[in-house]
Amino acid sequence: MSKKFDKVFHKKFGQRVRFLRKERGMTQEQLSFEIDADNSYIANIENAHRDIPLSRIRMIAKALNVEPYELLKF
Amino acid sequence: MSKKFDKVFHKKFGQRVRFLRKERGMTQEQLSFEIDADNSYIANIENAHRDIPLSRIRMIAKALNVEPYELLKF
Repeated sequence: MSKKFDKVFHKKFGQRVRFLRKERGMTQEQLSFEIDADNSYIANIENAHRDIPLSRIRMIAKALNVEPYELLKF
Repeated sequence: MSKKFDKVFHKKFGQRVRFLRKERGMTQEQLSFEIDADNSYIANIENAHRDIPLSRIRMIAKALNVEPYELLKF
């Protein structure tokens, strides 16, 4: 992972996704499916194991029915 | 570019970056340098020619002295 990857920041992002996902009663696999990603994609995002492109942030926001900026409010 | 890439959404993001960058009197090259990227990186982002990872969104926000979520408020 690039040195540009800030684990603390990405962990906060992952926690935010996890919180909203659980609030909607979705599993990690269901949300991954909704955004047309591999089964383990959301697990990896929530645990800050990988970076995520803006295109995927937009898709996650859509699947969770929030505005994209709300995913970065933590 | 993947079909997941939403040109309209990414253009709005690019316009937001451009607005804040100009407000601070920075050139595209200066902002690219600040985030340790290629000379043309910010030009490509502002013109929605490429996707951008969350790690870079965080770095741009830091360089522009705003919270990351403010870059997605458009």
